[in-house]
Amino acid sequence: MSHTTKNKGKMLSRVRRIKGQVEAIERVLDGEGECEEILQLVASCRGALNGLMAELIEGHLKFHVLVPGQMTLPSQLEAADELMAVVKRYFN
Amino acid sequence: MSHTTKNKGKMLSRVRRIKGQVEAIERVLDGEGECEEILQLVASCRGALNGLMAELIEGHLKFHVLVPGQMTLPSQLEAADELMAVVKRYFN
Amino acid sequence: MSHTTKNKGKMLSRVRRIKGQVEAIERVLDGEGECEEILQLVASCRGALNGLMAELIEGHLKFHVLVPGQMTLPSQLEAADELMAVVKRYFN
Amino acid sequence: MSHTTKNKGKMLSRVRRIKGQVEAIERVLDGEGECEEILQLVASCRGALNGLMAELIEGHLKFHVLVPGQMTLPSQLEAADELMAVVKRYFN
Repeated sequence: MSHTTKNKGKMLSRVRRIKGQVEAIERVLDGEGECEEILQLVASCRGALNGLMAELIEGHLKFHVLVPGQMTLPSQLEAADELMAVVKRYFN
Repeated sequence: MSHTTKNKGKMLSRVRRIKGQVEAIERVLDGEGECEEILQLVASCRGALNGLMAELIEGHLKFHVLVPGQMTLPSQLEAADELMAVVKRYFN
Repeated sequence: MSHTTKNKGKMLSRVRRIKGQVEAIERVLDGEGECEEILQLVASCRGALNGLMAELIEGHLKFHVLVPGQMTLPSQLEAADELMAVVKRYFN
Repeated sequence: MSHTTKNKGKMLSRVRRIKGQVEAIERVLDGEGECEEILQLVASCRGALNGLMAELIEGHLKFHVLVPGQMTLPSQLEAADELMAVVKRYFN
């Protein structure tokens, strides 16, 4: 899993931040905090998860669908960038 | 926060399940598992988070936007159900 | 359907703009335009549809779930606003 | 744009079906139909648009990011399938 290995530190930080957000939801819920606060925390957590997904997809696309070292046309790299631009619009 | 208090046990179970999913992502990522597995875990986690959001919205709608004990027309309860039906289609 | 009647002109403009976007997708597809262009057009169209949905939900919430003229507590209006803030984060 | 050309007929049918759905929204809105009906129509239309997007992404992935005729490892085809499985979970 070359690409996640390469960015492993960065990815793990992202995942741990998401875990922190889930723990905050748990804490506010358990402490009977405001409903509005929980709704906003869940929305933020979903945003962070979408960001992680977009990054995983980008790595998968550039390192597994395309393979560094394998002969790749410039048009293929461009097509991968176009795809990522759309994925990011969806997972923003 | 009456509704989250009422369903607090159920809600907390949901949140803890989500935390377990995030920890699984962390573990697979750290252990350099398959990229595909991580992608699927993130997608499942997002599904669980959407389910939690739908449940929170339903409670918010029925206990804060509408208020039990407050005079409520049958058409208002119906409208709340219609709204939830759409929210669930989006957050499925 | 009081709220859609009230904002009917504005709503219809939104829907017609969306129809125009779908027709643009059709045209580019039929004319064998660039794949990237079509992907971006579809993403824009989805954004416009999400905007329409958010507006419909807001009207439904304020005019059907809550009912103008019906006795409504300030906390209920506030709860409706909180809900809309979350819906808009999801449907942005 | 080889892949949309190849499936052009099928794609155009999809887009025209979506246009029909947008026209139905317009008609119901203009005729002051039920709010609930409009909400459901918009949700269906969004589903159809997501389906179109998933198909466009699949074509883009198989014909532009990967290129038929270009040397492609079996692992690359597999990675593309894995990516599509995740995309479809998101755009269902």
